[in-house]
Amino acid sequence: MANTTNLFRRMHDGSRLLILANCWDAGSARLIASLGARAIATSSAGMAWAHGYPDGDVLLNELLLDSIRAITRVIAVPLSVDVEGGYAEDPVKVAELVSALIDTGAVGINIEDGALPAGQLAAKIERIKQTAARAGTDIFVNARTDVYLRGLVPEPERLKETLKRARLYRDAGADGLFVPRAAPSEIRELASGAGMPLNVLASPGLPSAEELTALGVARLSAGSGIAQATWGRAATLARAFLQDGRSGPLAEGAMIYPEINALFAAR
Amino acid sequence: MANTTNLFRRMHDGSRLLILANCWDAGSARLIASLGARAIATSSAGMAWAHGYPDGDVLLNELLLDSIRAITRVIAVPLSVDVEGGYAEDPVKVAELVSALIDTGAVGINIEDGALPAGQLAAKIERIKQTAARAGTDIFVNARTDVYLRGLVPEPERLKETLKRARLYRDAGADGLFVPRAAPSEIRELASGAGMPLNVLASPGLPSAEELTALGVARLSAGSGIAQATWGRAATLARAFLQDGRSGPLAEGAMIYPEINALFAAR
Repeated sequence: MANTTNLFRRMHDGSRLLILANCWDAGSARLIASLGARAIATSSAGMAWAHGYPDGDVLLNELLLDSIRAITRVIAVPLSVDVEGGYAEDPVKVAELVSALIDTGAVGINIEDGALPAGQLAAKIERIKQTAARAGTDIFVNARTDVYLRGLVPEPERLKETLKRARLYRDAGADGLFVPRAAPSEIRELASGAGMPLNVLASPGLPSAEELTALGVARLSAGSGIAQATWGRAATLARAFLQDGRSGPLAEGAMIYPEINALFAAR
Repeated sequence: MANTTNLFRRMHDGSRLLILANCWDAGSARLIASLGARAIATSSAGMAWAHGYPDGDVLLNELLLDSIRAITRVIAVPLSVDVEGGYAEDPVKVAELVSALIDTGAVGINIEDGALPAGQLAAKIERIKQTAARAGTDIFVNARTDVYLRGLVPEPERLKETLKRARLYRDAGADGLFVPRAAPSEIRELASGAGMPLNVLASPGLPSAEELTALGVARLSAGSGIAQATWGRAATLARAFLQDGRSGPLAEGAMIYPEINALFAAR
């Protein structure tokens, strides 16, 4: 397990952009792994929706753990789990959840500050790393700051505020920095100033993978993008089918039954 | 609950084709219900895949029940559950599973003969109905025969064999007959000879909903069609994203984040 965590950590060395096409259940994880993904990461939004919950720190620990167990059962590459804000305010509770995730085979997490004070996330990270070290385990902690995403400070101050938080999180033990909606023009400074590997989120207008690598970005995540695309497809098809019952459109671009079944049959 | 079962049973009276856009998890169930579906039915294949299992009677009862609980939590319309062959050979075990499903709020099931002798499905149906009646509950049993789907008899004998099985299943207590891949030219005779509401499966070349109603069909199911379409979309997007990291394609046809979140936020 520690070897897998190190393998995952080394994927952030910047030599080759680590692209994560985030999954939301065991099926999508297995599918994405079958396409040659070097690692699998979950989308907390996609996973909450699949369970019938909104995104926003409300998914039950039990359901999250069930999903992660189901995912590790069907993939062989490193797995990183998005835990939103940790589903608790108490760092002890958050660290307990992360310990349970490590026990299921996860080697990395994303954990975010969101609208809460940066000090709270730092305290959670510190506790997570301490708890893992005491148990003789290791976890790659990707600290997400929502300074840009939520517009937590005026535009001219975003870069400085993000780098200030990066230092705080790194001092607490974070292994990487995730800055969703980072302004493309500030990515280079974010990458050089973070003091740890920088992760950005897919969004319209983001530079190409090649450019991101040149800017010093180590990791690119799809976030809930692929999940949202499948929701869009399901909504379009279900709406039409409920209205007219036409079979034809269902097959357009569909993955055929034996091909999906074969992903799981060999196990 | 008995009232909901009766409501679901009345939807099969043939006055208006019951169209089921089958779901595979709580999220897709909630989405489909939000589009005005009169009832929700699961796709056993879609659900098995989501959990990381192949279709084919291997999904664990516990995982199935977890999913059904999650679905009934987020929908208000009647729910029918596809249980493949019942995940056991023993009719007692199958009836126990169905009782547990009734307890979670399911009002209907699909159960299939597949490659097994018709007598085995009849025994399961009989036990399911007896067990439900003894518990003072009610369940709509949609008996699926795979005579056409699996080509169990030579083509000229399919209609006769299917109607023979229909009588057997009806005598055992079945409420409806499901004939996937029924030959369009034989649908009228299947509908008039089944002695119970006929359900057909969406497939290329199937007559329109209007024509199906005129032929006497009561129910039309998407089966795993919508699930397969979303798998196709996920595969296409994930493959491209892993290769080039381009963000743009993810947004094409995607459902937007607040719209998905709103489906669950009100609960």
